[in-house]
Amino acid sequence: MTLRISNKMQVVRGSVIRQMAEAAATQEGAISFANGNPSSDTFMVEEFARFAADIFYKDPNSVLQYGLSQGYPPLIHALKDRLSTVWGIDFEKNDLIIVSGGQQACDFASKLLLNEGDVVIVEEPSFASCYNTFRSYGATLVGVPMCSDGMDLDKLEQALKDHSEARMLYVIPSFQNPTGFTTSAEKRQKIYDLAKAYNVAIFEDDPYCELRFSGKDIKPIKSLDQDGLVLYAGSFSKVMAPAFRLGFLVFDKSLTTRMIVSKQCTDVHSSLLFQNITYRCMTECDYEGHLANSRAIYKKKSQLMYVELKKKLHPAIRCSQPEGGLFMMLFLPEGMDATPFVWEALRRGVVCVPGSGFMIDQEAPNNGLRLCYSTATEEEIIRGTDILGNLSHEWLTK
Amino acid sequence: MTLRISNKMQVVRGSVIRQMAEAAATQEGAISFANGNPSSDTFMVEEFARFAADIFYKDPNSVLQYGLSQGYPPLIHALKDRLSTVWGIDFEKNDLIIVSGGQQACDFASKLLLNEGDVVIVEEPSFASCYNTFRSYGATLVGVPMCSDGMDLDKLEQALKDHSEARMLYVIPSFQNPTGFTTSAEKRQKIYDLAKAYNVAIFEDDPYCELRFSGKDIKPIKSLDQDGLVLYAGSFSKVMAPAFRLGFLVFDKSLTTRMIVSKQCTDVHSSLLFQNITYRCMTECDYEGHLANSRAIYKKKSQLMYVELKKKLHPAIRCSQPEGGLFMMLFLPEGMDATPFVWEALRRGVVCVPGSGFMIDQEAPNNGLRLCYSTATEEEIIRGTDILGNLSHEWLTK
Repeated sequence: MTLRISNKMQVVRGSVIRQMAEAAATQEGAISFANGNPSSDTFMVEEFARFAADIFYKDPNSVLQYGLSQGYPPLIHALKDRLSTVWGIDFEKNDLIIVSGGQQACDFASKLLLNEGDVVIVEEPSFASCYNTFRSYGATLVGVPMCSDGMDLDKLEQALKDHSEARMLYVIPSFQNPTGFTTSAEKRQKIYDLAKAYNVAIFEDDPYCELRFSGKDIKPIKSLDQDGLVLYAGSFSKVMAPAFRLGFLVFDKSLTTRMIVSKQCTDVHSSLLFQNITYRCMTECDYEGHLANSRAIYKKKSQLMYVELKKKLHPAIRCSQPEGGLFMMLFLPEGMDATPFVWEALRRGVVCVPGSGFMIDQEAPNNGLRLCYSTATEEEIIRGTDILGNLSHEWLTK
Repeated sequence: MTLRISNKMQVVRGSVIRQMAEAAATQEGAISFANGNPSSDTFMVEEFARFAADIFYKDPNSVLQYGLSQGYPPLIHALKDRLSTVWGIDFEKNDLIIVSGGQQACDFASKLLLNEGDVVIVEEPSFASCYNTFRSYGATLVGVPMCSDGMDLDKLEQALKDHSEARMLYVIPSFQNPTGFTTSAEKRQKIYDLAKAYNVAIFEDDPYCELRFSGKDIKPIKSLDQDGLVLYAGSFSKVMAPAFRLGFLVFDKSLTTRMIVSKQCTDVHSSLLFQNITYRCMTECDYEGHLANSRAIYKKKSQLMYVELKKKLHPAIRCSQPEGGLFMMLFLPEGMDATPFVWEALRRGVVCVPGSGFMIDQEAPNNGLRLCYSTATEEEIIRGTDILGNLSHEWLTK
């Protein structure tokens, strides 16, 4: 007997990022610009250890028995406070649950909004694990190309016109993965207006917003939302630690009960220990100082990588210059596929991820490649960009 | 604008167990037989604290950065070893991933196998959070009544005949929640044969199997599976701690890639810290002694509650006598609804959960009520059964 796989799970795909990571693992001493991990230098390890010990010795059952599905109330309170004060989100209208990372926020948004056959309009390229999440609920993806200040709005409107079955619009407004691009304030407003006009929900995925290291903060689309059409996802993966598996989802208050039931019947609740530690890091420590320190680390690495690449790369290769987050993207000349370039770079000891891995059709040629500067040392950035620079000159003058 | 909710999420329901817990919270000093929590006395708190401190001081990044979606390899290895040696599961044919508790195993099984409109055949009564999970993938539930040795097989076969669109059969074979009933070895074989004959997958949910305190262990249905039709879910919630949010799912090897992608696009991976701690508890500590201690605690409480109830309850009330796990069930005389009885018990200071909360139709009258003996003290069990006994005599002689 062969089990019948559900229609929706027949179309999910393996991750190109993981393929690269596995290939890289066989390449001893390779410099990795591949994984989107935060820098371990930003982890508040001393505090994590201290708070964990404190609670295990003083009140272990509070982090060992079942907890509330919506999350640890003090953390929810602290988060709402920060999101309203700093990011302009209105908690008279909205509510929030704690989820197991931004990925689960995407899972819940999809489960809540998508019927099989619905269209999700997505930035392209974008974070492919969320593409897979949408597919795992039977959605069809329609891509809108990214410009350096956000989606191409004409093409977005055309997509909305062409697909009346579209139910969701997926955006990463700040320091997008993989491009590093940020959607401008003007475009955020226009995206919101278009979504409203065409009656489409927005899933706003904003895991990097606290990591701006140049330019001025731009408020999330959720801060513009008077109509309850934006589901806003945040994450502690980049500002605490990925393996905390903690994020949050903000949504119109009318959805609260369904979100809690969704959490109950998916995985009951997220880690109480890490919710407790995160709360204490936010309220008992110098959390602003911690964020400032993280931003300074990423600023230094990002600028170093950018300057070295500009100096070393063949001039026909464009390079995005992020104002925050973990990623930048190289663009080979139009029409050139970056995948063989990436494999050659790997052979020479530098791991990066081909742009095709962030496209709806991963088989089609794509001229982009993603570089993550967050985990490499400065010496690795210099050595890795040397290799990429030399390769680019050989590659483009062949 | 009002967001359109997906068809499948329009039918999920709030949990009666949580309603009872909330009602109980307003009842000061109430004795709770309501929550299915393990006893905190079973937690290896010293070991948890020691292992957490050890890893935070020696190798924090190994539990802070992103990990493998399939789980921590040493834990996977230790689990496969135990499941093959003790429980007869064949890992030549099968594979295993670590998930965030048994609830997520149910979520993945549902996502993998269910199209909207499919029927899931379920034991009735059963664990309602899994009913909700099936609903959240658009399934329709068909109930088969439970006998004290497992499902009524005639009614199961009738259900399979009547519903050719059935794709999954949901069973809790050991110390079932809520009844405490265990499916006999004979019935396990017959259930497997029927599922095979009617081409239906089995989702075998076995969170309590390590907690047998009388009688002999019965091997899971998965141990009979030569055809790859059983998805077997286990949990660390009852043998480590619920808030570890760790469980596992065993499935035919042909499904490995899809399961890993499912984890990637749902929540990336489960807690690395708790996977590490669980592995060390299983391999560096006296894990058998820990399980024996847990079984002894539950045996004592279960037997005390059973003896007290037999002595005190009106003789028209039946009481299940579990051989393991956390639950027993009272059955008022046929045709009598237990819900008003439960509310009156709450008013008198004892919290339990009405059987209707474990039925497909939660509105219909039901004569059952679930008692959990795991968290109450012996003194509370004696005092609580006094109250239930007195109430039963008043109730049935009115």
